[in-house]
Amino acid sequence: MSDNSQWFTESSEETGIGFSLKIRRKLHEEQSAYQKIEIYETERWGNLMVIDDCIMLSSRDNFLYHEMISHPVMFTHPNPQRVVIIGGGDCGTLREVLRHPTVKRVSQIDIDERVTRLSERYFPELCESNEDPRAELLFIDGIEWMQRADAGSIDVIIVDSTDPIGPGEVLFSETFYRACFTALGTDGLLVQQSESPLLHQSLMQRMSADMRRAGFDGVRTLSFPQPVYPSGWWSATMAGKSADFPKARYAAMQELQAMRYFNAAIFDGAMAIPEFMAP
Amino acid sequence: MSDNSQWFTESSEETGIGFSLKIRRKLHEEQSAYQKIEIYETERWGNLMVIDDCIMLSSRDNFLYHEMISHPVMFTHPNPQRVVIIGGGDCGTLREVLRHPTVKRVSQIDIDERVTRLSERYFPELCESNEDPRAELLFIDGIEWMQRADAGSIDVIIVDSTDPIGPGEVLFSETFYRACFTALGTDGLLVQQSESPLLHQSLMQRMSADMRRAGFDGVRTLSFPQPVYPSGWWSATMAGKSADFPKARYAAMQELQAMRYFNAAIFDGAMAIPEFMAP
Repeated sequence: MSDNSQWFTESSEETGIGFSLKIRRKLHEEQSAYQKIEIYETERWGNLMVIDDCIMLSSRDNFLYHEMISHPVMFTHPNPQRVVIIGGGDCGTLREVLRHPTVKRVSQIDIDERVTRLSERYFPELCESNEDPRAELLFIDGIEWMQRADAGSIDVIIVDSTDPIGPGEVLFSETFYRACFTALGTDGLLVQQSESPLLHQSLMQRMSADMRRAGFDGVRTLSFPQPVYPSGWWSATMAGKSADFPKARYAAMQELQAMRYFNAAIFDGAMAIPEFMAP
Repeated sequence: MSDNSQWFTESSEETGIGFSLKIRRKLHEEQSAYQKIEIYETERWGNLMVIDDCIMLSSRDNFLYHEMISHPVMFTHPNPQRVVIIGGGDCGTLREVLRHPTVKRVSQIDIDERVTRLSERYFPELCESNEDPRAELLFIDGIEWMQRADAGSIDVIIVDSTDPIGPGEVLFSETFYRACFTALGTDGLLVQQSESPLLHQSLMQRMSADMRRAGFDGVRTLSFPQPVYPSGWWSATMAGKSADFPKARYAAMQELQAMRYFNAAIFDGAMAIPEFMAP
C-alpha cells in the first residue's frame, strides 16, 4: 500500500497472500485475557474485527459465513432443538440459529467475553437476538463444557472458532471431536469452519480423518465465498454418526426469512466437491 | 505490507480492497501498443500476469477461471463445433475449449499479440494446445471481426476480456452483443466474464439488460471462486436466444479429462443464485 496508515493488512508468508481493507480509523484495541482484539471502521466494508492480527469479520460480508456455518447443518438435522455453538462470540451464528423455529435452547460458549461485549457495541446487528429467551451466553472453556455435557443431549454442535492456532487450536483435535460425539444424540450433527479449500487442504483432510477416528461415519465438506478470509473461499466440515446424512429439509428452507446468501439451490451447490478435492 | 518491494499489490479506492502476492522478482515489463503488461515470479502462486496494474492470472489459481468460463457454456450447447474466443490472449480458455471433441474450429481473437507471446514464455502450460490444427489465433479487433462474421455461423462465443475499462470496455455493450447475436446460430450461446457478484452487481445487472436488449431471451449468471480477483469471488454471464437453456450434456461431462475444479456437481452448484442476487 502506498500509505500504510490508511489500510489494515493481514498478510502471511505461508500463503504468500496479503489482504487489505481501506480504513478510516481504529475504533478500539485491547489485549483481553486470551487475545488481542482490534476494531476498525473501514471505508467500504463497515466495521472490521481483527483478533491476533487475523481478520475475523466485516459488517459487509459476514452474512456469507454466518449463514453458511449455520443453515446447512440446521436443515440437515431432522429436528434441531438443542444447539451448542463453540466460539462464535460475535453472536452472528447465534442469530442465524435462532431463526429456526425448531430450536428450544442454544448455548453459545466462547471463552472470551470481550469478543461478545465488543460485538454488542460495534456489530449490534449480529447481537439483535442475544436477549432471545432460548439463548444462553457462557464465557467458559468450550472443551471442558463439552466433556461434561450429558451424553446424547445435543442435536447440533457448531464450532465457530478462530484458526487452528492460539486459543482455537484445541478445537481441531480428535479429543474434542470425541467429546462432541458423546454429547450428540443419534441424529446429532457437528459442523466446524475448516479454512480455505485452496490453501488448507492438508488441514481439511486431517480434520475429516480426526472426525472419523472420533466415531463419525459421515463427513462432508461444504464451501462458500468469504472475501475477507485468505483466498476469499472458505469451507465448513459437517460430521454425523451415520455414513449417510439425512435428506435435508428443503420445504423448511422456503420458510426462512431475511436470508442474503443461503437458499435451497445454494445449499445444494455448496456441497459440490471440486475435482481437486475429490477423494 | 512492511516491505513494499517484496509484494505486488492491486488496490482500489472504489472497492476499498487491496490484494497482494509475495513476489520473488519481476520477470518482465513492457508497454504494448494497447496496455502495460508485467510478469512476476511469486513466492507461492507461480507466475503472475498483470495488465494495467490489474492482476490477470496466476499459475496457481487460473484453472478455476479458465474451467468455469469454458465448460459450463460448452456443455450447455447441444453440439458446439465452431467456437470463438474474444480476448483470452493467455490461451488458457483456448486450451479448455479444445478438450471438447465436438469442436471443429476455435478462433481466439485478442487485439494484443504481446499477451499471447508472453503467455507462451511464462505460462507455457496454458499454451500447450496452441498448435492444435483446430485452433486459429488472430490478433485483431474482436468487435470488427464479430460484425463481419457470417450470420448464424458460430455455436459458442466466449468473451474472456479484461475489466470494462480500457481496451475491454467496448466488449461490455449492447452493440457488441447484437453482433454476437447475429453471428450465433439458433442454438448459439454467448458467455462473458462478469466481475464480482459482491462488488459489481450494477455492472452485472446492466450486462444482463444489454444482452436482453440485443435479442437474447435467456440470460443466466454463474459464479465461482477466483482468489486473485477482487473479493475472491467471480462470475460469468451466459446468454442464449431462447428463454430456456437446453438441458446440459451431463453424460459428456464424465468424459472430460484433466479437470481440477469443474465437474457435474460444480456445474449445477455454480448456477445457484444467492438470495441477494435473486431477481
